[in-house]
Amino acid sequence: MEPLDRQISFLLEADRLKTVLRQSTLTDGSRRENSAEHSWHLALMALVLAEHAPPGTDLSRVMAMVVLHDLVEIDAGDLSAYAGEADQARQRQAEEAAADRLFALLPSAQASALRALWDEFEERATAEAKFARALDRLQPMLINMVVGGGGGTWQSAGITADQVLAKVALIEDGSPSLGAYARDMINRAVDRGILAPPAT
Amino acid sequence: MEPLDRQISFLLEADRLKTVLRQSTLTDGSRRENSAEHSWHLALMALVLAEHAPPGTDLSRVMAMVVLHDLVEIDAGDLSAYAGEADQARQRQAEEAAADRLFALLPSAQASALRALWDEFEERATAEAKFARALDRLQPMLINMVVGGGGGTWQSAGITADQVLAKVALIEDGSPSLGAYARDMINRAVDRGILAPPAT
Repeated sequence: MEPLDRQISFLLEADRLKTVLRQSTLTDGSRRENSAEHSWHLALMALVLAEHAPPGTDLSRVMAMVVLHDLVEIDAGDLSAYAGEADQARQRQAEEAAADRLFALLPSAQASALRALWDEFEERATAEAKFARALDRLQPMLINMVVGGGGGTWQSAGITADQVLAKVALIEDGSPSLGAYARDMINRAVDRGILAPPAT
Repeated sequence: MEPLDRQISFLLEADRLKTVLRQSTLTDGSRRENSAEHSWHLALMALVLAEHAPPGTDLSRVMAMVVLHDLVEIDAGDLSAYAGEADQARQRQAEEAAADRLFALLPSAQASALRALWDEFEERATAEAKFARALDRLQPMLINMVVGGGGGTWQSAGITADQVLAKVALIEDGSPSLGAYARDMINRAVDRGILAPPAT
């Protein structure tokens, strides 16, 4: 196959991410969010919240990572951020296999380059990956704040404030100011009764 | 309101783009595509097809434009690429009003910067805007090729090859190689009977 034909095949296979449903709903609560539109929302967040990334962060690499990060869910599906360790290990394996299959659809040099970006996001060692991961954690929290008492995933899954606060460390690691915002938001969620206080 | 609060308000308002339905379906034909997941697909295309942009094209501005380009549909809705001139003029007016309202949710310097990107996409004068617009035209054609006889928008709307070929000029203007690919694809669509031959 010609390189462009391989690229188009990859792009058409990627279309399936629009059918992978996440735990979160839309802000209007009308239906569950899919992973493709979630990825778009993260790209918009990267653009709008760029000033909250540490100085020197390469925003174009952040954008590329958030656009690519969930493609593996085409094969592996979405797992709740609050899943247990065994489920998370299984998910990790399924996602690795999915990355092997999906990126191999591309011409080989490009496959390696985009796979490296996906690995970078997963490893969360660079400023770009930390910021991208922070956005990925913050986005469903923002939605849950809006959906609130109307059946947000926090309430339906019996999530408590201490579980959500444990996720805030990852946001703080990517962006101190967004981390502070998230911590404050969670306190407000407890005050408003849309998130159960710490269980302990 | 604090700048970050304004940015979050904008991002939550943007969530509504997930409820705006386009004419195209998903590649599996299961439902109509929404404008948020379409925008994600364009961002992925920009990343994967970057080498088909003219040399010197600033890919990060292309990415930003495709992520922002459809936000105005939150107020204005989606219009078929094959709508008549009067409908297109009305749509243009509604989109301008939507851009005025939506970008004003952001802190003012950022509102101006992102509005300028949206205007640039609409005006289609720079290499970045031309490439972004080419991707926006190519994406539904790729989907229609896959959905094909199964009820793609070409057949259900009675679109003929000459109407689609008229749109290819815009793809060629943004990327000669993608334009050639699109022209060849349309000829194949006619050969395969999923697109009616030129009406004239």
